[in-house]
Amino acid sequence: MTGAPARQPQQDRSRATRGRLLEAAITCLAELGYQASTVAVVAERAGVSRGAAQHHFPTREALFTAALEHMTAVRAAEMTRQFAALPGGRPDTAAIVDAVFSLFTGIVFRAALALWLAAAGEPALREQIIGLEARIGRETHRAVVAMLGADESAAGVRETVQATLDLARGLGLANLLTDDSRRRAQIARQWARILDTTLG
Amino acid sequence: MTGAPARQPQQDRSRATRGRLLEAAITCLAELGYQASTVAVVAERAGVSRGAAQHHFPTREALFTAALEHMTAVRAAEMTRQFAALPGGRPDTAAIVDAVFSLFTGIVFRAALALWLAAAGEPALREQIIGLEARIGRETHRAVVAMLGADESAAGVRETVQATLDLARGLGLANLLTDDSRRRAQIARQWARILDTTLG
Repeated sequence: MTGAPARQPQQDRSRATRGRLLEAAITCLAELGYQASTVAVVAERAGVSRGAAQHHFPTREALFTAALEHMTAVRAAEMTRQFAALPGGRPDTAAIVDAVFSLFTGIVFRAALALWLAAAGEPALREQIIGLEARIGRETHRAVVAMLGADESAAGVRETVQATLDLARGLGLANLLTDDSRRRAQIARQWARILDTTLG
Repeated sequence: MTGAPARQPQQDRSRATRGRLLEAAITCLAELGYQASTVAVVAERAGVSRGAAQHHFPTREALFTAALEHMTAVRAAEMTRQFAALPGGRPDTAAIVDAVFSLFTGIVFRAALALWLAAAGEPALREQIIGLEARIGRETHRAVVAMLGADESAAGVRETVQATLDLARGLGLANLLTDDSRRRAQIARQWARILDTTLG
């Protein structure tokens, strides 16, 4: 017998603890901002002892580096889920626009925003955020182009798809302090019309 | 003789001190975020004694309430300045779009963003920000409609102008960690074409 079967439950527990810490880091970032989200605060929110938290993440930087990777994975999964829920074939442009806009309205977007702002003064965090944002930006762009069936070799199409994502980000900001969903739905309808006209 | 001539220089000094504190509050917010921007930190940045700072702003809340009003005035003045610099008559749509986008890329936008994020957890600040944002949002919307000569009674026009401002906000966010001006200029050109087509 090897030690593997005995070690397995401990590895599972360790992975679960790590996952709880990362989820708690996102919630804390979204609700309290970066400065107030210390390892101790995140550990308490996760229901994990401070010692266990420091075993997984010896420094605040290690915690938020991992949280950032986790957030990126969560955002990519959320994108896949939203897009997979659309009807088969070429979905309505309006449904695509709604799905894209919804990617920027949840708690993960708020947490990402807190990290972006904090990153201006934290060079190590900043470099990572720039890299991850570029990656998820490219993935989202590619997915939206594919769903719309857009031809990026045509003049202005690439910029129009980019504008869709920038608009979604701006609407996410507008939703930060008040529920902006009614206004957003009206803009989404008009934006879908503009996309249909512009992309031909 | 009344005391007025003697009091005047002191009033001027007091006003100048207040102005320096408000400017420093904006810089601190933009560079350090809300949590780190205490009255003491802002006073030091302004080159004002802590006692003098507390005379003007007894609490942190009083300072940031005033800073928010000041930022709103600065943003309104910046909008007027940008729009007044455009050629007379009906300016090129591209020039209007550039002017609108530029409103969301400076230090005041970054400071406002720090306050928005912080406001989620500060009810008093939140109510004021919502009110001021709604006011400046309406003023900007009205100014853009007037400059474009847009007819808001036509279907979709109101939403298209709103989308212009939401897009500008999203582009401001994209500019937070890297210089996004080249990409922004390309999107601005395409956006101007879309506006010309959509607004007829």
